[in-house]
Amino acid sequence: MSMPRYSVWGVTGMPEIDAGDDLVALIADAVQTSIAEDSDAFLRDGDILVITSKIISKAEGMQVPAADREKAIAMDTVRVVAERIHPGGVTQIVETRHGLVMAAAGIDTSNVPDGLALRLPEDPDRSARALCEGLRQHFGVSLGIIVTDTFGRPWRVGQTDVAIGAAGIIVTDDLRGGVDANGRPLNVTITVLADELAGAADLVKGKASGIPVAVVRGLGKLVTDIDAPGARTLTRVGDDDMFRFGSAEAYQLGYDAAQAERAQIPAKRVTQD
Amino acid sequence: MSMPRYSVWGVTGMPEIDAGDDLVALIADAVQTSIAEDSDAFLRDGDILVITSKIISKAEGMQVPAADREKAIAMDTVRVVAERIHPGGVTQIVETRHGLVMAAAGIDTSNVPDGLALRLPEDPDRSARALCEGLRQHFGVSLGIIVTDTFGRPWRVGQTDVAIGAAGIIVTDDLRGGVDANGRPLNVTITVLADELAGAADLVKGKASGIPVAVVRGLGKLVTDIDAPGARTLTRVGDDDMFRFGSAEAYQLGYDAAQAERAQIPAKRVTQD
Repeated sequence: MSMPRYSVWGVTGMPEIDAGDDLVALIADAVQTSIAEDSDAFLRDGDILVITSKIISKAEGMQVPAADREKAIAMDTVRVVAERIHPGGVTQIVETRHGLVMAAAGIDTSNVPDGLALRLPEDPDRSARALCEGLRQHFGVSLGIIVTDTFGRPWRVGQTDVAIGAAGIIVTDDLRGGVDANGRPLNVTITVLADELAGAADLVKGKASGIPVAVVRGLGKLVTDIDAPGARTLTRVGDDDMFRFGSAEAYQLGYDAAQAERAQIPAKRVTQD
Repeated sequence: MSMPRYSVWGVTGMPEIDAGDDLVALIADAVQTSIAEDSDAFLRDGDILVITSKIISKAEGMQVPAADREKAIAMDTVRVVAERIHPGGVTQIVETRHGLVMAAAGIDTSNVPDGLALRLPEDPDRSARALCEGLRQHFGVSLGIIVTDTFGRPWRVGQTDVAIGAAGIIVTDDLRGGVDANGRPLNVTITVLADELAGAADLVKGKASGIPVAVVRGLGKLVTDIDAPGARTLTRVGDDDMFRFGSAEAYQLGYDAAQAERAQIPAKRVTQD
């Protein structure tokens, strides 16, 4: 069996992005300019471009005045999942209108010009699709697009990049019903390739390096029709999530419910099956 | 600026592992045998080996009879974080004695011989260190080790691989206090490189392919002293986690507390700052 193999590199030379910029043209330019430094940098069939959502937000004009940060968070929030007040302010974990559960609805002020904050793209899958169409046409190859953002997670320190948008790519490896090398059912059900690709690309993009685009080559089996399901299918925000609320919030709901029962007032309940 | 770049490949030809096997020798053999197929497969300074915890558990003799699965889960569980009863049985998300929060304490029956279940390695960082020492000595190069397992996560479908053990590698990029290209403070604080590496390697290892080891080449800046902090430092299981309990469990605690107050009995509380 030959060794499965792929490589990842960061696309250098991307300029600062402003509202209205043509990202397809700018990414294509940066990729082509890089060719002088690396003869391997022509895009090929099966390449995957992993793109930081920040440059998409900028091109799509999602900037808001930094003073309106709280308003922007409220605008993009469907519900507050958990909240904590600490000396430095309030940390809110919210469900966004994109179906993402994350801090501050993804509103960000780093790598954004002074006085501005940046919202996530309006519809990251739509953005991914537009970039996929444009870059497929420009390079004349079949490539896939992942749009990333940086997420914290419970029970583990720090953050990793995950996929918030995708186009032309198989986002999961659905092993439900599959068997292992011994013919036994696999415990793992769905490997989320798109998130693993997002993390893989972050290892060359980084947060302080000014490299917002990476190319992944060698996983062409994941590149597919542009109508394939996007990253929205990776979100899970229904009542079936065991961690639908923060512990303190769920505790308060339970406490209030007991109080209300005592007072014979109908109370909200945490839904569970 | 030259393009940052790395590559990842799966090491084929690993045999089925039994208790007592010398993993250093078997991994070294598989890497060397692969050379015939890929002249690039000699290990070099700065290479990172990403190893599925399952083969380490097998070599360390962590097999238990499948009939004792529940007992094994209890043995490796420090506390139950969330539990759900469904037609197929009970799903328990627990905190393990390794500080990991995961389903069924990581006890697994896929890719395990019939009639057996497999516990996680006793101490994945210690296992990583032993492999790092052995493989550094065998190949005469400075390499890093990541030990992985597969985790689900709240609010997103499916699973990704994360790092449960590490040795000789910088597991995080701590950006606290850092600034972006504009000199503004970065919102992101700690990028968890070890988890991103685990996911990157899973893209060639996979769950059904029988490839338990991957080599990452080109990120040698992450390879460091063997005494560097391991993956245990990536776990966060204290009272400060906003999702210390499942929603239903926290709700019940709150409900019980209100009832107890009414009865003037001291009740357990969800700790929060």
